[in-house]
Amino acid sequence: MFPKNAWYVACTPDEIATRPLGRTVCNERLVVFRGPEGKVAALEDWCPHRGAPLSLGAVVDGKLVCGYHGLEMGCDGKTVAMPGQRVRGFAPLRSYPAVERHGYVWVWPGDAAQADAAKLPHLPWADDPAWTFGGGMFHVRCDYRLMIDNLMDLTHEKYVHATSIGQPELDEIVPQSAVEGDTVVTRREIPGVKAPPFWAAAMRGNGLDDSATVDRWQRCRFVPPANVLIDVGVALAGQGGFDAPAAVKTSGIVVDLITPETETSIWYFWGLARNFKPEDAALTAQIREAQSKVFQEDLEMLESQQRNHSAQPERALLSLNTDYGGVQARKVVQRLVEQERAAR
Amino acid sequence: MFPKNAWYVACTPDEIATRPLGRTVCNERLVVFRGPEGKVAALEDWCPHRGAPLSLGAVVDGKLVCGYHGLEMGCDGKTVAMPGQRVRGFAPLRSYPAVERHGYVWVWPGDAAQADAAKLPHLPWADDPAWTFGGGMFHVRCDYRLMIDNLMDLTHEKYVHATSIGQPELDEIVPQSAVEGDTVVTRREIPGVKAPPFWAAAMRGNGLDDSATVDRWQRCRFVPPANVLIDVGVALAGQGGFDAPAAVKTSGIVVDLITPETETSIWYFWGLARNFKPEDAALTAQIREAQSKVFQEDLEMLESQQRNHSAQPERALLSLNTDYGGVQARKVVQRLVEQERAAR
Amino acid sequence: MFPKNAWYVACTPDEIATRPLGRTVCNERLVVFRGPEGKVAALEDWCPHRGAPLSLGAVVDGKLVCGYHGLEMGCDGKTVAMPGQRVRGFAPLRSYPAVERHGYVWVWPGDAAQADAAKLPHLPWADDPAWTFGGGMFHVRCDYRLMIDNLMDLTHEKYVHATSIGQPELDEIVPQSAVEGDTVVTRREIPGVKAPPFWAAAMRGNGLDDSATVDRWQRCRFVPPANVLIDVGVALAGQGGFDAPAAVKTSGIVVDLITPETETSIWYFWGLARNFKPEDAALTAQIREAQSKVFQEDLEMLESQQRNHSAQPERALLSLNTDYGGVQARKVVQRLVEQERAAR
Repeated sequence: MFPKNAWYVACTPDEIATRPLGRTVCNERLVVFRGPEGKVAALEDWCPHRGAPLSLGAVVDGKLVCGYHGLEMGCDGKTVAMPGQRVRGFAPLRSYPAVERHGYVWVWPGDAAQADAAKLPHLPWADDPAWTFGGGMFHVRCDYRLMIDNLMDLTHEKYVHATSIGQPELDEIVPQSAVEGDTVVTRREIPGVKAPPFWAAAMRGNGLDDSATVDRWQRCRFVPPANVLIDVGVALAGQGGFDAPAAVKTSGIVVDLITPETETSIWYFWGLARNFKPEDAALTAQIREAQSKVFQEDLEMLESQQRNHSAQPERALLSLNTDYGGVQARKVVQRLVEQERAAR
Repeated sequence: MFPKNAWYVACTPDEIATRPLGRTVCNERLVVFRGPEGKVAALEDWCPHRGAPLSLGAVVDGKLVCGYHGLEMGCDGKTVAMPGQRVRGFAPLRSYPAVERHGYVWVWPGDAAQADAAKLPHLPWADDPAWTFGGGMFHVRCDYRLMIDNLMDLTHEKYVHATSIGQPELDEIVPQSAVEGDTVVTRREIPGVKAPPFWAAAMRGNGLDDSATVDRWQRCRFVPPANVLIDVGVALAGQGGFDAPAAVKTSGIVVDLITPETETSIWYFWGLARNFKPEDAALTAQIREAQSKVFQEDLEMLESQQRNHSAQPERALLSLNTDYGGVQARKVVQRLVEQERAAR
Repeated sequence: MFPKNAWYVACTPDEIATRPLGRTVCNERLVVFRGPEGKVAALEDWCPHRGAPLSLGAVVDGKLVCGYHGLEMGCDGKTVAMPGQRVRGFAPLRSYPAVERHGYVWVWPGDAAQADAAKLPHLPWADDPAWTFGGGMFHVRCDYRLMIDNLMDLTHEKYVHATSIGQPELDEIVPQSAVEGDTVVTRREIPGVKAPPFWAAAMRGNGLDDSATVDRWQRCRFVPPANVLIDVGVALAGQGGFDAPAAVKTSGIVVDLITPETETSIWYFWGLARNFKPEDAALTAQIREAQSKVFQEDLEMLESQQRNHSAQPERALLSLNTDYGGVQARKVVQRLVEQERAAR
């Protein structure tokens, strides 16, 4: 149950730097690679000759060469050549729209005619030298919607992330949520608190006094099909919070790009974009390591929750005010899926 | 195929000493924990909020706090509180009768109205200072009835446990079996033999000459739903065997408490209770280690047998006189299951 | 989808040297062992007493003794004895025809009445002192027909085995194929080339100049149900190739005996028979090691191809001229399976 007419992250560029990559996206088994002039391409991972995965092959002169018998495949899914064979009649492979942008390779697993690069999510920090980014990827065995729920209701930080980003005041603030077209925003402002360990370390890295009282904020934005971008930060108390001057705050954007692999597993691309000390690679590595630990704390919970849901798929869940963001995001997704069904 | 209106061991106290435990008993996914005043409790392992397993949470002030968003659950399955929420309307969880007794935590996975602590198995040694106990637990992938068969027909000792408790004379003695209501007893007396290695070591531990000729006995008692208690021992030959004076014998009770996890897997709680040198902790550790090795010898056989049965579930088995104990135990279980069916 | 009225390799003699072996052949779970006078036997791996696998037992005085309760089984599937029991009425096990020949233990998983040792594949080198053999066995998760395809179309050597037996000229030569009754032969002659690394090493081992120009040949012979025997070699150029005098060539027979375990897994017995320097055990070990590496290169491809086929079982494959050998072999197998169906 996921929209297929949408852009999903297939991989990061380093994953296809030296060889093609086999990856399942929305139940489609793909091979992702760089064709002529390094342009990214995605095809069915199936050699038209004997059904071997093309991802076990190699890219030679911009063509994807099957590792079994040397069939040469073009980016459009048409066989270019094969030793000793005439290939004109070979059935073409399905080709998936693919675009490299914002530091990711995106694919469109649905109807290629509707693919439009203008529909890619807008990640302005990715191409702005005043910003930097560090992140990673996890494979998680859960429905992608459980991950969206997780990210749109940050009251879990107090419990799951008690030693890093959680703090007692978190669930005393009722979040404010709003639906804006297909996007959903949930905001929480936590004024006059001490920074929890993750943010204290970030303040130190940014040259701020980590013992100061701060105003903290979280603004979670769900963007379909399965992306959550979260403005997060702390500012010295009383300086305007989110709107405080750069000199008194430490902030960034938590980036969560979720790609369903199957109905119950995901590729989870995560990271933090920041505009303080962007040139400090050691700080980037330190933040990335801390964030990796935080997200790993979620994995056991999400996979256990999925096992529970799989055992009792019909059992009802409660939707409280804190769940509003996730519930609305699910409604958006549901509507998109129904639109796709109706159009077929 | 197991009685559900019965007490089963869910865990030992050390398994819930510091945190709740998730455990499946008779296909029911439970969370077991200590509530107010340390009283044990068992509930469905499902948070009524979003279906996360409560076993990933923590016990705080006698309440089970969900590790995801902090819902506080009581021992009765009713939500006590949740940060920022009114919880009165939250659907209650199913609560399972739970009792701590004889060094185990017992749960009743069936109809709570029929649960009665008086139906717990009688393990008098557990609370008698003249006795001590050492044991452990294994997870085994087999139908619990294969384990009962194993324990009610000890002719397998000669083959499976040739180097520990087996001895050539074992299968020369035809066992005597009897059904007493819902219990089944199989006895075997082996007069005038040398003690096999396990018992020779126990005799040495008990200050007896391990080279002496002994009379050996085994009295296996099946107690439903799935417990087998075995009086075992050796006495200097001609002194009365089982009834010999304490000074000339070394004996104990093999304790086998079997809890079905699913139709084809069990939690197997095993141990030895003894009334010789109960204060000798080193001897307890040594016996426990030896017994652990003996029971591990059974595991490969039982799991392989289960794989064979799963591959050919309809294929008939032979029931010989040596199988009488297991066959009668299966009949008791079958009758109990049919009674439960009829009552529904 | 495999013929069952056929001889398949169950194991090598060393696998049953000290104890019985449990092995599944064509979906039949077998125990293979040596009975009286060391004669090989194969039975259902199921003790008629309680369904334990007999393969966990031991052979004692030519009888297979169950490792659980000591039932003694004869090679004909009839219970010989059991401690304390009369066994005349015990249901017999199915016994499978078994023969030891050519260094292998062969079983006939189908109708025993049709088993005939005369139908065993002819492997004359196995019993000829002028020849020697080195080989091994792999378990591979693929349909046995994918392995036959692999062996009957050696154009894959250039891609899968680029650093050992592959060479650029391989796919420039169109192979010649022919069907001879139930066997299929595919020939390829590659004149005037340099020996690839595997063959260069073999030439050195055989005392030939490994830098010389050679004529190379491959003659793949499929013999049902699932054997492929390949005449391979190199001779100094212009000396007659396959027919060159022994002094100027290095050659052998690649032996591939494939036993389906299930529809999608095989036991793959491979090796090289050679008639040069048969007494040189170090050379045998060196060739065996090199060949093991070559065949391991195929495993990832075959198992990945199988996963692709399992995901899209109805998807069509192309059958090119290079696939002729495998396609014809599949037709032979198909015809044999249909003959078996018609006869039932």
